[in-house]
Amino acid sequence: MRLSRYFLPILKENPREAEIVSHRLMLRAGMIRQQGQGSFTMLPLGKRVLDKVCQIIREEQNRAGALEILMPTIQSAELWRESGRYDDYGKEMLRIKDRQDRDMLYGPTNEEMVTEIFRSYVKSYKDLPLNLYHIQWKFRDEVRPRFGVMRGREFLMKDAYSFDLNFEGAKAAYNRMFVSYLRTFTRMGLKAIPMRADTGPIGGDLSHEFIILAETGESQVYCHKDYLDLPVPGEATDFANDGEIAGIVKEWTTPYAATDEMHDEAAWTAVPADKQLSARGIEVGHIFHFGEKYSKPMNAKVQGPDGKEHFVSMGSYGIGPTRLIAAIIEASHDDNGIIWPESVAPFDVVINNMKPGDADCDRISEHLYAAHQAAGLDVLLDDTDERAGAKFAKADLIGIPWQVIVGPRGVAAGEIEVKRRATGERDTKKIETLLASLGPTP
Amino acid sequence: MRLSRYFLPILKENPREAEIVSHRLMLRAGMIRQQGQGSFTMLPLGKRVLDKVCQIIREEQNRAGALEILMPTIQSAELWRESGRYDDYGKEMLRIKDRQDRDMLYGPTNEEMVTEIFRSYVKSYKDLPLNLYHIQWKFRDEVRPRFGVMRGREFLMKDAYSFDLNFEGAKAAYNRMFVSYLRTFTRMGLKAIPMRADTGPIGGDLSHEFIILAETGESQVYCHKDYLDLPVPGEATDFANDGEIAGIVKEWTTPYAATDEMHDEAAWTAVPADKQLSARGIEVGHIFHFGEKYSKPMNAKVQGPDGKEHFVSMGSYGIGPTRLIAAIIEASHDDNGIIWPESVAPFDVVINNMKPGDADCDRISEHLYAAHQAAGLDVLLDDTDERAGAKFAKADLIGIPWQVIVGPRGVAAGEIEVKRRATGERDTKKIETLLASLGPTP
Repeated sequence: MRLSRYFLPILKENPREAEIVSHRLMLRAGMIRQQGQGSFTMLPLGKRVLDKVCQIIREEQNRAGALEILMPTIQSAELWRESGRYDDYGKEMLRIKDRQDRDMLYGPTNEEMVTEIFRSYVKSYKDLPLNLYHIQWKFRDEVRPRFGVMRGREFLMKDAYSFDLNFEGAKAAYNRMFVSYLRTFTRMGLKAIPMRADTGPIGGDLSHEFIILAETGESQVYCHKDYLDLPVPGEATDFANDGEIAGIVKEWTTPYAATDEMHDEAAWTAVPADKQLSARGIEVGHIFHFGEKYSKPMNAKVQGPDGKEHFVSMGSYGIGPTRLIAAIIEASHDDNGIIWPESVAPFDVVINNMKPGDADCDRISEHLYAAHQAAGLDVLLDDTDERAGAKFAKADLIGIPWQVIVGPRGVAAGEIEVKRRATGERDTKKIETLLASLGPTP
Repeated sequence: MRLSRYFLPILKENPREAEIVSHRLMLRAGMIRQQGQGSFTMLPLGKRVLDKVCQIIREEQNRAGALEILMPTIQSAELWRESGRYDDYGKEMLRIKDRQDRDMLYGPTNEEMVTEIFRSYVKSYKDLPLNLYHIQWKFRDEVRPRFGVMRGREFLMKDAYSFDLNFEGAKAAYNRMFVSYLRTFTRMGLKAIPMRADTGPIGGDLSHEFIILAETGESQVYCHKDYLDLPVPGEATDFANDGEIAGIVKEWTTPYAATDEMHDEAAWTAVPADKQLSARGIEVGHIFHFGEKYSKPMNAKVQGPDGKEHFVSMGSYGIGPTRLIAAIIEASHDDNGIIWPESVAPFDVVINNMKPGDADCDRISEHLYAAHQAAGLDVLLDDTDERAGAKFAKADLIGIPWQVIVGPRGVAAGEIEVKRRATGERDTKKIETLLASLGPTP
């Protein structure tokens, strides 16, 4: 992409309304525009990051055996009356009437609808396990939406729903999502720690929030430092092997970890003092086993191997991709701007032509631009005639992992400079060396 | 994907509510489930087709220089009051009040919002041309939604909006989208013919509907047979070259083509009788130049090279991906089911293991499955123990372009059968020959 033809509305000033760094940086870097209370347009740079985030989520859901569908945003009130939630859900639910005066709502979540889909088609345990997910807009009419996309009213959510014959199956399904989430967040450059969450009237211990540590986190969390070095399951993980998956979950739930809400002072003092990590955290995912909570009132049953009918045992598994973008920035930035992990960066490389109009700078910039594209990289060519300082500041602000600087003096010597955004390291390289190295990263 | 682990709820009976073939086949093939009036879930098979359709649209929008963003579904009524459309738009607009009793609406289209984004950031003609698009859910509260996803209430739409300094620029932007649409539909295996559409109070001739011919089409259309052989612009088309693009538009607007609404008997009789093609058509895209219709009331101006302020000249460009899926089926099916064009097929190949449990059939099926995946193909392995007839019928119904049939007798002879869905042709092949041929298609 040529910056001269791109739409990247950088803000020079710090927007006053932004209270946290991710909100400020997303506005300044031209990633989002607010359209209403808690409602945002993803501008081109933001859309690119969102796509990369969603793609990682999708790949890891698929790897764990979940199947992607796409349910509508508007739901009928009738369905929610079946589960009893139409009245229970308070003012956060956006209620709507259509032209025939029928009660509808903008889905804040999809348990009812997916249960309705399930019961319409699935009649036998032979078709289980089943896990259906979608990535779709949700609306929750929060009293006080704030912090940009961190707590919006209209937001994107990946929500998965598992269906199993019994608790044992449901637990295996829960474990698969648990491990899938570990992989998902790690691939985005995040260290996410699963912490037990409240299961309320459902009971049991099958509810975890995935929390990343960040100074600006919304809640206080406590965990054993061992989490920082626990190995994350690799690509070869066999999701069909319940035992292997349960083993990983065991390893990741044994050391102490709790949010403020679930904190247990007695257990905490049992952690050696030098292993205690008390920090701020941001929730980036939540998995929850709720058994027959919806299958019973909505009559979602399958025939078991015993010939009898059984209410299916269910769980739900959420990640908010728009919120995740903010969380990644909270965890990875400096005074100059965003520092994207390579896997979710909107562009892999920016080529900074320091003197557009100079025949040599133009020629080398174009050559490098084409070579990076040919190598399958997402590359941004800054071909604008802004002054050098502004170009450097912009490249740092938008956080592209690698900057290739093409200046007249360097080009005369057959050289360019390569800067790594994360560390600030600069390396002078022969142009041929860079071209020759164009593998996955320059 | 193994069919035994997939969610493909095939219907054996013809659903009574489906009046047209695409609706019937999408229900029968387990692609969609109706959730309410004019509202559908895309089930896994449908979601795959939708993704392929959207990806082609996206690639061709990007190629033509449009930039992808993502605007929210819920809009504030205030914006629509600025343009005057809040009152003009009738009951088709889904009006909503939030918890603070503010008037909002579910966007039926996005002219107002994108104009608001534009005017907030763009101040100079130097930042033009600009074309912003998104692929997002829309809601139109139709009195009588029908024909499945062909005319839904909640539907996906790709809507692009161009901004230019003056009419000349806007016309060039219009032409780029015109050519982009030709390429888009062709890549989906469709022959789309651009037909002049009503420009209403805007006037001029810059409004075209793209119509595909199908017996079940909703409207009567008339065109010159020459359209059927007109060459579609290739990948090398230079969208930066206004002259080249205008030349293509000229070529594609010169022969007679009109919908019933715009039909001109005098011009029609001038077409030689043997060149007259009168048929049924389905609208799959609409492009429209509307000049200052929104920029004036919403005060979207840029400074021109003359130092003066000018209202930008705009156009909008729509394609409905969900509707397009139905249109593709209307244009490409037979009595046995859907016949997917390869570019939008949910899977490229289905491997039909005719005797699961037979060691040789299993071994060869697994080997072929792995080899197709390694070749980068989307492959479905039918590893279920249904009887042969049901497997064949299902493969035909869901319309996968290639079927590889692995049966015990063939395998004993080192052979499989390859069937091409579109023609019904069957070819017996040596297994090694198939393996060796695994390029882009088997």
